[in-house]
Amino acid sequence: MTTLTGVGSTPLAGVGTARWFRPDALELPDRPNPETVDAADQRDRFEEAHDAAREAIRAARDRAAERVGEDEAAVFDAHEQFLDDPQLVGDVEGAIDDGTPAEHAVADAYGDAVSQFEGMEGRMAERADDLRDVRDRLLRELLDVETADLGSLPDGTVLLAERLTPSDTAELDPEAVAGIATVTGGRTSHAAIIARSLAIPAVVGVGEALLDVAEGATVLVDGEAGEVVLDPDDERREAVSGLDAPVVTDRVSTADGREIEVAANVGRPAELDPAVARGADGVGLFRTEFLFLDRAAPPDEDEQFEAITAALDAFPDERVVVRTLDVGGDKQVPYLDLPSEPNPFLGRRGVRLSLSAHADLFETQLRALLRAAATDGGDALAVMVPMVARVEEVEDVLERVESVAADLEREGVAHATPDLEREGVAHATPDLGAMVETPAATEMAEALAGRLDFLSIGTNDLTQYVMAADRENDGVSDLHDPLHPPVLRAIDRTVRAGHDGGAWVGMCGEMAGDPDLTPLLVGLGLDELSMSAVTVPAVKQRVRDVDTETARELAEAVLACETRADVAALLE
Amino acid sequence: MTTLTGVGSTPLAGVGTARWFRPDALELPDRPNPETVDAADQRDRFEEAHDAAREAIRAARDRAAERVGEDEAAVFDAHEQFLDDPQLVGDVEGAIDDGTPAEHAVADAYGDAVSQFEGMEGRMAERADDLRDVRDRLLRELLDVETADLGSLPDGTVLLAERLTPSDTAELDPEAVAGIATVTGGRTSHAAIIARSLAIPAVVGVGEALLDVAEGATVLVDGEAGEVVLDPDDERREAVSGLDAPVVTDRVSTADGREIEVAANVGRPAELDPAVARGADGVGLFRTEFLFLDRAAPPDEDEQFEAITAALDAFPDERVVVRTLDVGGDKQVPYLDLPSEPNPFLGRRGVRLSLSAHADLFETQLRALLRAAATDGGDALAVMVPMVARVEEVEDVLERVESVAADLEREGVAHATPDLEREGVAHATPDLGAMVETPAATEMAEALAGRLDFLSIGTNDLTQYVMAADRENDGVSDLHDPLHPPVLRAIDRTVRAGHDGGAWVGMCGEMAGDPDLTPLLVGLGLDELSMSAVTVPAVKQRVRDVDTETARELAEAVLACETRADVAALLE
Repeated sequence: MTTLTGVGSTPLAGVGTARWFRPDALELPDRPNPETVDAADQRDRFEEAHDAAREAIRAARDRAAERVGEDEAAVFDAHEQFLDDPQLVGDVEGAIDDGTPAEHAVADAYGDAVSQFEGMEGRMAERADDLRDVRDRLLRELLDVETADLGSLPDGTVLLAERLTPSDTAELDPEAVAGIATVTGGRTSHAAIIARSLAIPAVVGVGEALLDVAEGATVLVDGEAGEVVLDPDDERREAVSGLDAPVVTDRVSTADGREIEVAANVGRPAELDPAVARGADGVGLFRTEFLFLDRAAPPDEDEQFEAITAALDAFPDERVVVRTLDVGGDKQVPYLDLPSEPNPFLGRRGVRLSLSAHADLFETQLRALLRAAATDGGDALAVMVPMVARVEEVEDVLERVESVAADLEREGVAHATPDLEREGVAHATPDLGAMVETPAATEMAEALAGRLDFLSIGTNDLTQYVMAADRENDGVSDLHDPLHPPVLRAIDRTVRAGHDGGAWVGMCGEMAGDPDLTPLLVGLGLDELSMSAVTVPAVKQRVRDVDTETARELAEAVLACETRADVAALLE
Repeated sequence: MTTLTGVGSTPLAGVGTARWFRPDALELPDRPNPETVDAADQRDRFEEAHDAAREAIRAARDRAAERVGEDEAAVFDAHEQFLDDPQLVGDVEGAIDDGTPAEHAVADAYGDAVSQFEGMEGRMAERADDLRDVRDRLLRELLDVETADLGSLPDGTVLLAERLTPSDTAELDPEAVAGIATVTGGRTSHAAIIARSLAIPAVVGVGEALLDVAEGATVLVDGEAGEVVLDPDDERREAVSGLDAPVVTDRVSTADGREIEVAANVGRPAELDPAVARGADGVGLFRTEFLFLDRAAPPDEDEQFEAITAALDAFPDERVVVRTLDVGGDKQVPYLDLPSEPNPFLGRRGVRLSLSAHADLFETQLRALLRAAATDGGDALAVMVPMVARVEEVEDVLERVESVAADLEREGVAHATPDLEREGVAHATPDLGAMVETPAATEMAEALAGRLDFLSIGTNDLTQYVMAADRENDGVSDLHDPLHPPVLRAIDRTVRAGHDGGAWVGMCGEMAGDPDLTPLLVGLGLDELSMSAVTVPAVKQRVRDVDTETARELAEAVLACETRADVAALLE
């Protein structure tokens, strides 16, 4: 058993037979004497190849839209832009006019551009893959080289490659491919994103060591641990089997009958269908930032309404919890003119901006939400506010919800109607809730719960603030771990206080999606767990095995621990 | 009653009679024809003035050392450096040789340098005051202008000035001067620092409006609120009278006999004597950063030993709590090569560095501490560790203390000896404690208390982390307030858990020094309050008026509040 380490990019695991994808090398013929080259002829060849490549890109786009989702398919729009880039096309045509054959002209012009992107940092460097993809399409047309047929690989294939292009990846049949491992690549490359959307286990950036894996070897790809294991033993196979649990579409209950809602975190519309496919009980966290990022102006009310109703339509019988805009901190939006802060994670984020500098955006979002809530009778939509630290903020939010409802009423626009309940505090339809991610919110959980319908614990930020450890700072990564006793105690207090206040309490941080922690979380009394769709089946499977009483005892024992090591020992 | 607003620089208040300090304008004679100037003669004049200025600076230095402290006196070493700066002296002499009279040569050369400093930012700009001070000394000598006699102002003077130099300020008799208000200046100017050390109420940077205050007017200087009040009414006079409570050197108890230790926070050795003078019951927070900042290499063990024993000597009958090095976050030390972090307040700070990258510095500091503890029989010195978030960190610290003690034992060096107590956990002499400033530490307070002798709540950082609000970010300053219910609840839990764990619990954040909060803090059960020395008398006075039972009822009512406004209403 040999273990190679890379970057886990789809947190699933699979075992299968290694098959190398070695696209035919695109070897160029020797360069002829320029004087022997017929430029008009070469121009025709280039034009023909260019048309064929465009057709192939559009076909790939349509297949991806169907199999993966519109958002991922948009990669191919970028490819078409590269294909038609006036400067690149101009360089190619200029070289042809100077007596260069079409294939050399393409290799030179696109090759230079690839090198330029490769020299950049981070995500720009990953765009080099897209450009290389376009270049190779053109060259294959010009050199008449067949594309390997990635769409009909035998079942149980673990696909190994130097690199995979987004086009290659979108061709793959997730039923047949048990895993992917590549020598190069990063988690945010388009190919990795597409693999994740297809729910194919993947480890990228394994390095040269991968090249030694023999065709036909038995290989386990563990996209959670970021490992590629050759000839895995039974123990290792078993250890990852939880990641590949069968999909359960019904709600699940513990062995003794307590129903636990297992929902999905969704960051973009394209993730809705995969969440349905993996059996999520609705959406526990629908992030709305995708509506605001990568554009020049905020979305209008109708665009937001459409996006929210699309989420409700995807889950006609389940709840969809929409989180209001959560920017600031590490999430910057150029047109919102957010302040640059020395400690952005301790600055103006989430509801703090919605109640001050961006009250106008918040009002528009609330209008879209109340309108969308009316389309489902107000039963399925729930609205969640991020970064709450004070009861005052929730009271302010409730007032704004009422005021927006009054505006819509005056305008005669169909909307859900908030009503007043429990000692004069406004309770609204749709249900309203708060993220519990500041220590302050854990302290005030009962008071918050008394004014709201639900709380959802965001363990990533909560851990960051409780431990005073930036979750993106490697220098304190040992502190950023939700299994430290103080974090567990803060979670416990929140669940109990939330219930005392009359609210249901869920969890939507990464902790919720770890099947190994499911018994502990059930024992802590959480009513709902929301996670990346890929881990929904495994968590549902674990819920069914849990005995509530045993889980409660486990939780009590864990809460008595004073160190992380003691917690780990108990969870073994 | 007219109120002018500036920057409070000494948080005390005083009322008195306005007297303007308008140093005689240093008017230069017209420039003569260079050919009529005898350069040798002018050189002699400059040399004479230079010698006289040096003598005056040294005299000021000695007076300041005696009246204010060695640290503040060091300002005048900087003045002497400016005086002797080879480039400035060279410029003056060059100009003289070119036919410029000495006074014009000085005004030109030093004037240019003043302008350069004024163009810089922050603290460098404040050094312009020092250079101006030196220039004016030279010019006064050359022009034969008498210095105003600031040392013999009548009692009850509120001194008003465009600006005060450090020399001017060091001349002042704190018995006679009821307050200072200046048009320009910042909190960190040397003049402001000296006024603070002399415990003279001061407001700086009031702006041009101050110029309208008439000589002889009755003026109240409120250095806490940063306000200058003309013709203050009785209510306003009364409101600030607490700031000027009489000094009580004995320990104080509540009306019903519960002793509360009222100690001082000390940041530099020069603050020790003023802390004694204001009746502090020892030092609740002795910061050791002054030993490490503004130098090129860390202090050695002996230098640290000397600084710690000096603190013990200043309070022979009281406890001195020395905090181990707390750098990182906003405190940078060039030679320690601290990482630049995107969220420094959530990064490697305090004990995190002492247990990792700077273990060597920590060991040296522990050696100095254990040696110093031996000089007092181990009863007066206590050691406190900052930024604790995990029980594991305290266990690690205890192991290192033991290991350092074993080293000293082997070397035959006199030192205090840690011993083992309570279920095999190491308890050391000197007493050991932890700052409680992360939410994690509040959650683990009982476990920490079980391993330590005391806890001290640092409310500035604790508020920052509980509320997830950077204490230096004006955009979230409304969140950075320890009277928000979640912060008060975290404090309450810490005190109770700390007592359950068998430790005494103090507070050393700014909250501890607010006399208006003394009843609440007593009601919360704190055993010790440590604060800036200036507020010690006022807090001692308030402690004596507190009835423990009433205070407890107040605390309970405050803890039941759900909003900041409700807390404020109860504290009115």
